Amino acid sequence: MNKSRFENGLELLTSIDGEAGHKVLESLQDICPDLAKYTIEYPFGDIYARSGLDLKSREIATVAALTVLGNCVSQLKVHLNAALNVGCCEEEIKEVILQMSIYAGFPAALNGMFAFKEVLVDRAV
Amino acid sequence: MNKSRFENGLELLTSIDGEAGHKVLESLQDICPDLAKYTIEYPFGDIYARSGLDLKSREIATVAALTVLGNCVSQLKVHLNAALNVGCCEEEIKEVILQMSIYAGFPAALNGMFAFKEVLVDRAV
Amino acid sequence: MNKSRFENGLELLTSIDGEAGHKVLESLQDICPDLAKYTIEYPFGDIYARSGLDLKSREIATVAALTVLGNCVSQLKVHLNAALNVGCCEEEIKEVILQMSIYAGFPAALNGMFAFKEVLVDRAV
Amino acid sequence: MNKSRFENGLELLTSIDGEAGHKVLESLQDICPDLAKYTIEYPFGDIYARSGLDLKSREIATVAALTVLGNCVSQLKVHLNAALNVGCCEEEIKEVILQMSIYAGFPAALNGMFAFKEVLVDRAV
Amino acid sequence: MNKSRFENGLELLTSIDGEAGHKVLESLQDICPDLAKYTIEYPFGDIYARSGLDLKSREIATVAALTVLGNCVSQLKVHLNAALNVGCCEEEIKEVILQMSIYAGFPAALNGMFAFKEVLVDRAV
Amino acid sequence: MNKSRFENGLELLTSIDGEAGHKVLESLQDICPDLAKYTIEYPFGDIYARSGLDLKSREIATVAALTVLGNCVSQLKVHLNAALNVGCCEEEIKEVILQMSIYAGFPAALNGMFAFKEVLVDRAV
Repeated sequence: MNKSRFENGLELLTSIDGEAGHKVLESLQDICPDLAKYTIEYPFGDIYARSGLDLKSREIATVAALTVLGNCVSQLKVHLNAALNVGCCEEEIKEVILQMSIYAGFPAALNGMFAFKEVLVDRAV
Repeated sequence: MNKSRFENGLELLTSIDGEAGHKVLESLQDICPDLAKYTIEYPFGDIYARSGLDLKSREIATVAALTVLGNCVSQLKVHLNAALNVGCCEEEIKEVILQMSIYAGFPAALNGMFAFKEVLVDRAV
Repeated sequence: MNKSRFENGLELLTSIDGEAGHKVLESLQDICPDLAKYTIEYPFGDIYARSGLDLKSREIATVAALTVLGNCVSQLKVHLNAALNVGCCEEEIKEVILQMSIYAGFPAALNGMFAFKEVLVDRAV
Repeated sequence: MNKSRFENGLELLTSIDGEAGHKVLESLQDICPDLAKYTIEYPFGDIYARSGLDLKSREIATVAALTVLGNCVSQLKVHLNAALNVGCCEEEIKEVILQMSIYAGFPAALNGMFAFKEVLVDRAV
Repeated sequence: MNKSRFENGLELLTSIDGEAGHKVLESLQDICPDLAKYTIEYPFGDIYARSGLDLKSREIATVAALTVLGNCVSQLKVHLNAALNVGCCEEEIKEVILQMSIYAGFPAALNGMFAFKEVLVDRAV
Repeated sequence: MNKSRFENGLELLTSIDGEAGHKVLESLQDICPDLAKYTIEYPFGDIYARSGLDLKSREIATVAALTVLGNCVSQLKVHLNAALNVGCCEEEIKEVILQMSIYAGFPAALNGMFAFKEVLVDRAV
């Protein structure tokens, strides 16, 4: 039997984000479990599970997007961890954040870099 | 003698964007040539010229950023062309745009995809 | 047998948006049919199909969102039509757009109102 | 004698937002009382006081707008409370926030939902 | 007798924006005359009419804001004209737009500069 | 010998922002010193150092931009201090923030004003 979009998505999320992704989902259980379900199904079950772009490139695109958006630091941190988990080295991630100064300005790049600093400190513990 | 930031940037822009980049610069000459100069020096002379991230990954990050921003279609088109020029295949670029539906919503992804459709039509001519 | 998310979504889209929605989907067929599929499945098959909020309120929320975003006029027009189709009167829609001047500023409200003016002209033809 | 825009606005704000709105106004008194005055007069005295759209629909539009904007959590919380105060049920508000994942992406919807979780906890105390 | 907010605002708008502002108001008459009224009353009757900041500085702030927002080109053009009308020289306006590359990125600055180029061409005719 | 862009920029940053700017740079040294270098060179060495617009007008434009962006409070605070340091009076800065309610909505203006309140409290200590 085929796995469901949810099962595929959860498996992929677990392999990429580990605990961080699960914590987000758990924190939704008492307020809106359906949002947790959709957050697994569409982003991970449908999109990240697609072939056509390797996971490392997907996380580079996501780090760029969330640095530019600038108002979702906790999601950015999840994906900075994810980027490291799927094989981006620290230097590559810094380059992506740095490059966003061109498109979204220096404050966005600075805030992205400070988020990455916190991620690296947390991982060192 | 070392090349200047401007010379390095212009060389890199030419190799990545070809005519499209030059047209943008020319259209600035009568209104603000210094903005053209800075647009070469910082983004291309300083950032794209850095090692630490390959050009293909840089263009993936930029396509993600400009799709998310959503209000700079002409710059997005320049970088959709650039992404193809530095070795991204069509499928990879479509995946990046598609993925942005997760972070910036479906309208941003739809508009990014329509911009790419126009780029592919222009290149086919 | 249960209908698929796609079938449910397409049926709902057709009843709400009529031709406008279908045109968007058709224009994606040659560039990225999967984006058309996802645009039916998640927004319409999953979300608009949910109980818990009537369609009129859903379109009020969407008109507010797209007026605020300000960079997706064609999607705004689709949903201004949709809002009229599901029972919002013209006055209610104008009030929603007008109210957005508070949260996203006067330029966003003005551009939303001009989009609605075009929608009303098109429908009068 | 007719009431002023300020008096009408303050009365409406009080009936909708109760204490939360007043706290915002008080916190402006020592820095810029005119901004407090304008925040009553235009949004509440001019716009929310208009006929043509019921208060419940107005709050649905506002919750949508502030969820999409994503950088004004404290104002979102004021209006999540207001939405409950004017007759939206919890489920309807969750649906509005959930629906914003379509237009502004999942991070915006997640942050909106976490804000609502905090509002519900505060009200339960 | 005191002039109304509307009368004061209209007088100020006329002196700053001349025809451009009036055209915006006229184009609202058949769709939402109240939005035209509010667009005079609050921005011009209440805010621009205040002492405490000279009109030249107000237009510098507005050109900065609209360049950063990036999705309201027609309003930006009105205020680029207004900035020239209240005494900013071309060079000062170019500097403001150029400076926005720092805070909102190069695409925003480029699009702002191209809008200014169109304004200057229109004024030369 | 001519001073470098970095030396010029650092000198200018020091004269405008004093300690606040330096703290930002120091906090980047262990994560990405090149971002600190670029943040001096381009914004301060290239742009703020230009003639054509006085520093007071530059800071007015920046306060407007960062209030509108709404997701970079710490950078806004640095420039609220800078605006005071280069000769803006408190009233002028409040007017700029207040005026942003027109273009980016009341939440952006409120959050900008609360940031200024904190800056004034910090300077009074």
